[in-house]
Amino acid sequence: MFPKNAWYVACTPDEIEGKPLGRQICGEKMVFYRANEGRVAALEDFCPHRGAPLSLGFVENGRLICGYHGLAMGCEGRTESMPGQRVRGFPAIRSFPVVERYGFIWVWPGDAEQADPALIHHLEWAENPAWAYGGGLYHIGCDYRLMIDNLMDLTHETYVHASSIGQKEIDEAAPSTRVDGEEVITERHMEGVMAPPFWRMALRGNGLADDVAVDRWQICRFTPPSHVLIEVGVAHAGHGGYHAPAQHKASSIVVDFITPESDTSIWYFWGMARNFKPDDQALTDTIREGQGKIFAEDLEMLEQQQQNLLRHPQRNLLKLNIDAGGVQARRILERLVEAERPGASALIASA
Amino acid sequence: MFPKNAWYVACTPDEIEGKPLGRQICGEKMVFYRANEGRVAALEDFCPHRGAPLSLGFVENGRLICGYHGLAMGCEGRTESMPGQRVRGFPAIRSFPVVERYGFIWVWPGDAEQADPALIHHLEWAENPAWAYGGGLYHIGCDYRLMIDNLMDLTHETYVHASSIGQKEIDEAAPSTRVDGEEVITERHMEGVMAPPFWRMALRGNGLADDVAVDRWQICRFTPPSHVLIEVGVAHAGHGGYHAPAQHKASSIVVDFITPESDTSIWYFWGMARNFKPDDQALTDTIREGQGKIFAEDLEMLEQQQQNLLRHPQRNLLKLNIDAGGVQARRILERLVEAERPGASALIASA
Amino acid sequence: MFPKNAWYVACTPDEIEGKPLGRQICGEKMVFYRANEGRVAALEDFCPHRGAPLSLGFVENGRLICGYHGLAMGCEGRTESMPGQRVRGFPAIRSFPVVERYGFIWVWPGDAEQADPALIHHLEWAENPAWAYGGGLYHIGCDYRLMIDNLMDLTHETYVHASSIGQKEIDEAAPSTRVDGEEVITERHMEGVMAPPFWRMALRGNGLADDVAVDRWQICRFTPPSHVLIEVGVAHAGHGGYHAPAQHKASSIVVDFITPESDTSIWYFWGMARNFKPDDQALTDTIREGQGKIFAEDLEMLEQQQQNLLRHPQRNLLKLNIDAGGVQARRILERLVEAERPGASALIASA
Repeated sequence: MFPKNAWYVACTPDEIEGKPLGRQICGEKMVFYRANEGRVAALEDFCPHRGAPLSLGFVENGRLICGYHGLAMGCEGRTESMPGQRVRGFPAIRSFPVVERYGFIWVWPGDAEQADPALIHHLEWAENPAWAYGGGLYHIGCDYRLMIDNLMDLTHETYVHASSIGQKEIDEAAPSTRVDGEEVITERHMEGVMAPPFWRMALRGNGLADDVAVDRWQICRFTPPSHVLIEVGVAHAGHGGYHAPAQHKASSIVVDFITPESDTSIWYFWGMARNFKPDDQALTDTIREGQGKIFAEDLEMLEQQQQNLLRHPQRNLLKLNIDAGGVQARRILERLVEAERPGASALIASA
Repeated sequence: MFPKNAWYVACTPDEIEGKPLGRQICGEKMVFYRANEGRVAALEDFCPHRGAPLSLGFVENGRLICGYHGLAMGCEGRTESMPGQRVRGFPAIRSFPVVERYGFIWVWPGDAEQADPALIHHLEWAENPAWAYGGGLYHIGCDYRLMIDNLMDLTHETYVHASSIGQKEIDEAAPSTRVDGEEVITERHMEGVMAPPFWRMALRGNGLADDVAVDRWQICRFTPPSHVLIEVGVAHAGHGGYHAPAQHKASSIVVDFITPESDTSIWYFWGMARNFKPDDQALTDTIREGQGKIFAEDLEMLEQQQQNLLRHPQRNLLKLNIDAGGVQARRILERLVEAERPGASALIASA
Repeated sequence: MFPKNAWYVACTPDEIEGKPLGRQICGEKMVFYRANEGRVAALEDFCPHRGAPLSLGFVENGRLICGYHGLAMGCEGRTESMPGQRVRGFPAIRSFPVVERYGFIWVWPGDAEQADPALIHHLEWAENPAWAYGGGLYHIGCDYRLMIDNLMDLTHETYVHASSIGQKEIDEAAPSTRVDGEEVITERHMEGVMAPPFWRMALRGNGLADDVAVDRWQICRFTPPSHVLIEVGVAHAGHGGYHAPAQHKASSIVVDFITPESDTSIWYFWGMARNFKPDDQALTDTIREGQGKIFAEDLEMLEQQQQNLLRHPQRNLLKLNIDAGGVQARRILERLVEAERPGASALIASA
């Protein structure tokens, strides 16, 4: 249950450097590779000759060569040549719209005609040199919506991430959630608290005292199909919190691109973008390492939660105020999935 | 296929020391933990908030705290509190009757109203300081009845445990089986044999010559749902065997509590209780280590036997005299399971 | 989908040396062991007593003893004895026709009455002292027909084995395929090429220059159910290629016995027979090691191809000229399987 007419993050450029990459996205086995002139291509991972996975092959002169019998595949899914064969009648394989932007490869698993690159959200931090970004990738055995729930309710930081970014005051500050078109925003503000370890590190990294009270904020923004960007930060208390001038705060954007592999597994691209010391690669590495450890703490919880839900498919879960972000995100997703159903399309077409 | 209205060994106290334990018993995912005043609780391992496993949480002030969003669960399955929430309307989760006794935590997976702690058999060796006990736990992929069969027919010692407790004479001594109410007793006596390695060690541990002929006995007692206690021992030959005075023999009780996890997997609590040198911890450790190695020899046989039976569900197995203990135990189990069927209960209720 | 009335290679003699071997062949769990007077027996791997796998037992005085309770099984599947039991009424288990020949144990998983040892092909290289043989065994997760396809179309060497036996000229030499009764022959000849690394090694091993142009050949011979023997070699160019006198060439027979374990897994017995330096054991070992590495390169491709085909069962694969060997082999296999269907047998019986 996921929209297919949407842009998902498929991989990062380093993953297709010098060789093709096989990856299942939204139930489709795909192969990604870099073709001529730097263009990225995404095809069905199935050689039309004998069904071998093209991802076990290699790229030569911008063409994907099947590693079994040498069939040369073009970017559009049409066989270009094969040693000793006439290939004109070979059946085509599916190609998927793909865009390289913002440091990621984006793929559209659904109807290619609707794949408009302009639908990819603008990501200021990915293009502006005043920002630095570092991140990673986890494979997790859960429905992508469980990860959206996780990120739209940061209450869990107090428990899952008790030793790094969690603190008791998160619990105590009620979040507020609002829906703005297809965006869901959940925010939470804590005033006059002591920063937890991760943020003390960030304050120090930003040249600020780490042993004084701070105002802390978390503003989670969900956009379909499954992107959650979270503005997070702390400011020395009394300077305006989220709105404090730059010299009083350390802030950043937690970046979460969640790509369904199947109904119960995801590729989770996580990272952090910051607009301080953007040229400090050592700081980027330190933050990435810290974030990687923190986000790894969620894995077992999410996977076991998924197993529990599979065992009890009819059981209703609670929808508390802290769950509102996830609940609203699911509503939007349900509408999108509904709109993709054949009947729905016909209705739109006839309207 | 197992009775649910019965006391099963769930775990040992060390397994819930300082943290909750998640364990599936008779098909039910449970969480065990030590609550206030030393009381042990057993609950469904499912947080009513979002389905997270409570066993990934922690215990605070005697309450089980969900490790995801901090819901505090009470021993009866009712949510006691949750940060920022009114919890009165939260659905309860199931709690299971649980008793700590004889060094084990016992759980009743069935109808709580019938859970009478007095139904747990008295275990003299567990309370009398003249006895010492050591044991362990194995997870095995087989129907619990295959393990009952195994323990009620010690003929297998000759083959599976040839190098430790097995000896040819076991084969040659025909066992006798009788049923006494819900107890099944299979016994076998061998006279004037040489003790196998394990028993030579026990004789030496007991200060007795290990190079003389002995009389050896095995008296297996099955009681529902799946407990097999086996009186085993050797006495210097000619002193009365099982009935010989203490100074001529080395004897002990093999303790087997078999707890179904699923239809084809078990938690197997094994151990040995002895009434000689009860304060000799080094001897306890030596015996436990030896027994652990011996009982590990059964694992592959049981798991592959299970796989064979799953492949051939209709094939009838033989029921020889040596199998009588297991056969009788299965009859009792079938009656108990039958009595738990809804129709059967109604019949009892209307009678 | 495989013929059952056929001789398959089950194992090699070293695999049953001193202990029984459990192995599934054509969907049947079997146990192989060496009985009295060197005779090999193959039985269902299921003890009639309690379903334990007999392969966990041992052989004593030529009888297979169940490792659980000591039942002694005879070569024909009839229980011979059991400690303390009368066994005359015990149900028999299935025994399979088995022949030891040419350094392999051959089994007939189908109708025993049709199992004529004369149906095993004569293998000259296995008996003639002018030949040496070395080989190994791989377990691969694919339909046995995918391995036949692989071996009947050596085009793949150019891609899968690029660094050892592959070379671009294989691609360029069109193969020719013919069917001769139940044999399918695909051959390919390349003239005036440079030998790839494996063949340069073989030339040197044969005392021939490895840096001159050679004529190379590959003659693949499929015979049912799943044996592919490939005559391969190189001769210094201009001496007649395949027909060149012995002093100008290095040649050998690639031996492939493919035994289905299930519909999607195989036991793959591979090896090489050569008629030069037959007494040079070090050379045999070197060749085996090299071949083992080369053939291991096919594993991932075949297993992932299998997964792709399972995901797309209706998709038609191409049948190019290079695929003709596999296509023709499949036709013969389909006829054989069809002939084994109950209706087909009745038809034959009534004819």
